[in-house]
Amino acid sequence: MTIREFREADWPQVWPILREIARAQDTFAYDPDMSADEAHELWVEPPPGLTVVTVVGDRVLGSAKMGTNREGPGSHVSTASFIVAADARGQGVGTALCRFAIDWARQRGYAGMQFNAVVESNRAAVSVYERLGFRIVGTVPGAFAHPTLGRVGLNIMYKEL
Amino acid sequence: MTIREFREADWPQVWPILREIARAQDTFAYDPDMSADEAHELWVEPPPGLTVVTVVGDRVLGSAKMGTNREGPGSHVSTASFIVAADARGQGVGTALCRFAIDWARQRGYAGMQFNAVVESNRAAVSVYERLGFRIVGTVPGAFAHPTLGRVGLNIMYKEL
Repeated sequence: MTIREFREADWPQVWPILREIARAQDTFAYDPDMSADEAHELWVEPPPGLTVVTVVGDRVLGSAKMGTNREGPGSHVSTASFIVAADARGQGVGTALCRFAIDWARQRGYAGMQFNAVVESNRAAVSVYERLGFRIVGTVPGAFAHPTLGRVGLNIMYKEL
Repeated sequence: MTIREFREADWPQVWPILREIARAQDTFAYDPDMSADEAHELWVEPPPGLTVVTVVGDRVLGSAKMGTNREGPGSHVSTASFIVAADARGQGVGTALCRFAIDWARQRGYAGMQFNAVVESNRAAVSVYERLGFRIVGTVPGAFAHPTLGRVGLNIMYKEL
């Protein structure tokens, strides 16, 4: 399992992962009907941000994007997002991507990393982030319409670097 | 004092207000060096969002933009931002704009309104929002580099509608 910079040749594997996640509507506040172009714009970060993929041989198991959370006086805080293919979950892919993003942000001198909208019911993600040192700063009540659970909260999470 | 929809003819008055606020770097995490085009893109919301101005005669005293905070499963929550000209502060312009945004969001059926990054030291804004029913959901520590106070927190604020 290797993490390396995203290349355009990875897109035919990254897009279906992202599309499945957007359509499931249970972990990301993304448009479930987004086009491939919109998804590319959303996921592939121009410098100084970075998008990476986790690969085993030629297969993409997951991807992460990372960059600056806000501009100007907020630009010392980073952010990141992570996606893992449905059949590659529970194997530490997300944890490895999150560790990668933390290292990347630390090396670039960011003071912290903020996640703006972690779905409260996505226990797998919340517990990975907590294990890696993030804490829940607050939860916006009912801000995410989960397809089976109804409206659940969106956590804002933060880790100082 | 009237609040009405933004027109392109207002831009020569809105842009200096926005530029002064961005340059001051004490209330918004905006790029202090943004160009007029970038500012226009940032501030003038395409439908279904809305940008309005507060005017007295031909003079623009302030402006607000409002819209959907997140996509897909997050699209039932609105957001808004407000700017007031330096020499028109303390006269209720911000409060009137915030009331307008709340009414707009309620009429459109949004379940709540979220502010993603209210600078903790901006007591005037925080207290206007609290008076209008917003509460601080959480504060990201040190996420805003204030020019004189150093790193202060960014509040996430929320009001159910």
